[in-house]
Amino acid sequence: MNMLRVNGDRLWSSLTEMGGIGGTPGGGCRRLALSEEERQARDLFCRWAREAGCEVTVDAIGNIFARREGTDPDASPVAMGSHLDTVPTGGRFDGAYGVLAGLEALRRLDDLGLRTRRPIELVSWTNEEGARFSPMTMGSSVFTGAMTLDFALSRRDPAGLGVGEALQQIGYAGDAPVGGRSFASYFEVHIEQGPLLKEGGEQIGIVTGSFKARYFVATIKGEPAHVGPTPMTDRRDAMVGAAALTLEIDRIGRAHGRDGRSNAPYLELDPNVRGVIPQEVRLSCDVRHSDPDTALAMEEELRDACRRIAGERNLSIDLDQYFEFGPIRCDRATSAIVRDAASELGFSHRDILTVASHDAVPMMDHCPSALFFIPSETGISHSEKEYSTPEQCRDGADVLLNAVLRAAA
Amino acid sequence: MNMLRVNGDRLWSSLTEMGGIGGTPGGGCRRLALSEEERQARDLFCRWAREAGCEVTVDAIGNIFARREGTDPDASPVAMGSHLDTVPTGGRFDGAYGVLAGLEALRRLDDLGLRTRRPIELVSWTNEEGARFSPMTMGSSVFTGAMTLDFALSRRDPAGLGVGEALQQIGYAGDAPVGGRSFASYFEVHIEQGPLLKEGGEQIGIVTGSFKARYFVATIKGEPAHVGPTPMTDRRDAMVGAAALTLEIDRIGRAHGRDGRSNAPYLELDPNVRGVIPQEVRLSCDVRHSDPDTALAMEEELRDACRRIAGERNLSIDLDQYFEFGPIRCDRATSAIVRDAASELGFSHRDILTVASHDAVPMMDHCPSALFFIPSETGISHSEKEYSTPEQCRDGADVLLNAVLRAAA
Repeated sequence: MNMLRVNGDRLWSSLTEMGGIGGTPGGGCRRLALSEEERQARDLFCRWAREAGCEVTVDAIGNIFARREGTDPDASPVAMGSHLDTVPTGGRFDGAYGVLAGLEALRRLDDLGLRTRRPIELVSWTNEEGARFSPMTMGSSVFTGAMTLDFALSRRDPAGLGVGEALQQIGYAGDAPVGGRSFASYFEVHIEQGPLLKEGGEQIGIVTGSFKARYFVATIKGEPAHVGPTPMTDRRDAMVGAAALTLEIDRIGRAHGRDGRSNAPYLELDPNVRGVIPQEVRLSCDVRHSDPDTALAMEEELRDACRRIAGERNLSIDLDQYFEFGPIRCDRATSAIVRDAASELGFSHRDILTVASHDAVPMMDHCPSALFFIPSETGISHSEKEYSTPEQCRDGADVLLNAVLRAAA
Repeated sequence: MNMLRVNGDRLWSSLTEMGGIGGTPGGGCRRLALSEEERQARDLFCRWAREAGCEVTVDAIGNIFARREGTDPDASPVAMGSHLDTVPTGGRFDGAYGVLAGLEALRRLDDLGLRTRRPIELVSWTNEEGARFSPMTMGSSVFTGAMTLDFALSRRDPAGLGVGEALQQIGYAGDAPVGGRSFASYFEVHIEQGPLLKEGGEQIGIVTGSFKARYFVATIKGEPAHVGPTPMTDRRDAMVGAAALTLEIDRIGRAHGRDGRSNAPYLELDPNVRGVIPQEVRLSCDVRHSDPDTALAMEEELRDACRRIAGERNLSIDLDQYFEFGPIRCDRATSAIVRDAASELGFSHRDILTVASHDAVPMMDHCPSALFFIPSETGISHSEKEYSTPEQCRDGADVLLNAVLRAAA
């Protein structure tokens, strides 16, 4: 079969220009969801999409849809997408690569004057990271109905600004209703955020499923007191309890092999001042494993640790689940389109599980969806060190172009 | 000797009214330095001081001086004072009691038509707590020259507002130059913030000295990475390092007997979001002991812990001292005036060390100063549970009145 190829230089140039918006001196990117920097990134994306002949619409949660018409007006579209927001210590590839690989595919179709039967829509989803506004994969989850619009609009950043107000401020509270679009299938390419493809030397990773992940807020309650005169034995220090729990969480992840993961990366202290023993700490934490039973066993260890630490340190600890994902099983037929395209392009590939959620995860409940990875040269993401080579980026866009072309035929 | 007595009901009534400003439903007080609540407290104090016949002046760091003239215009004044700001989880006695006991002493002198030879000045010092703006005992330290005015005015709260701007906002950036007043002696009464007087049953504690305390910021540096795909073994998690250090700090305080204290109550994470392993944590911590050599040994244990944890977890940890106090030795003659007054009033008393700093600590470098405590019924402070009885409050004001009267004779 005659496989198409993208323009790798153009893709790299677009990635470089986009990466400059919120770009950091060390080569990273700080472009928090609905910030001024992300507005600039959205504006640039919309301009590029229109220049590629697409019609651009924005829905009420700020998702941007760039539509390239097909020849059959009754056919439901094939969609591609990812996100333009980053974490505070982000790189230039996580999210933006998937959006711009899709844009490059559309541009290449335009270069070649190719029409597909189905329309193709490229989506830039709002707030995938959940770094400024929790929870993550917000735009795609609202699109699929997994999260209500009202709930999403009411979420606030640490400064108290709501998602709805932030969308108004940057001019992306769109007119289009949320949902209502019915996609035939969805394809997302993303950088791998770990080291497996690099270690194995494969060019493409086809995601067949995910780890099981469960997310909690541990609320640790003690008693405020003066840090000086209060004898150590009279204290009920919520932060010391949170520290003990943080170490236990780190231990739990390490105790379950190469696929064990556990985190406690976000915490709020009340109060957080130099003169007072904190009375309450809210610690966001999670456990993940490729084996769902092991993930549940890790959760039990976490619950045991909460009980033990609360008892030892005269604290109360409540553990409330606020999010979960997986284990998902990706659609076999849609994933096979990606795998076949990679094979026919002559790219080495392997099947892989995703440890993190992506917009493709909620999308799996909406339509047959495929997610695939290109290698990370550094094996690290959410960091200035995040890097994939121009060739790796080109290869992934080649796969995306050919897979979407086949699905839209 | 004929000992005077204050009006305990009036003192309690003033404490109750003042405690309502920033008062919390559980009987505590949240009146952060230079906040709107603290402005109201300052306004109320100024009104009461003028009603008691005092001339009120405010200096450039916002310290409020209420002056009652003496008969000798050339005599340097005797001063009393404490502070009106609280920590976020504060009680109604820490600070405000010392100011209002001084006010009650002035009111009682007015009731009796008594003139002293020396003028008497009652001072409400700015930002003793250091909870909103670090460091603590700011107003008294600037007054004595231990801290420069420029440094103090440039300190910022977590929202980025400077002390200078905050003083302007609440209208307490005063005209009077800082310092320049030369006090003959200084007396401060404060609630005890621990359980010793309650345990011993004494009515008054005369502070003869202090613990040695050294304050540090531990800067723990790792590497940001995605919380999901990054294998546990590849991580350099600054928060896990901070948690290990927090537990070590807690252990160090417990390992050195009844007088060992150590704290790590304030921390800043960068970033502090759900999706990223924190790259840097700045942890404010301190060690204290009544025995200075033991305090230094605790500091060495803290430094060892930093080195060990950094090595074990592939992090860097720098420990920078930013504040210290003690061991102070209080002026024997001035303390003797307080001790004699307590004895002659028939109150049981003991000598005691202070674990925390107070405005009297910097004042000891300015003039002979005395600090004394009344019991805490609950043994706890910086908490809604902070409480001293009306009788305990009255007894302390009786001692203050008679001590100041003797010093101002």
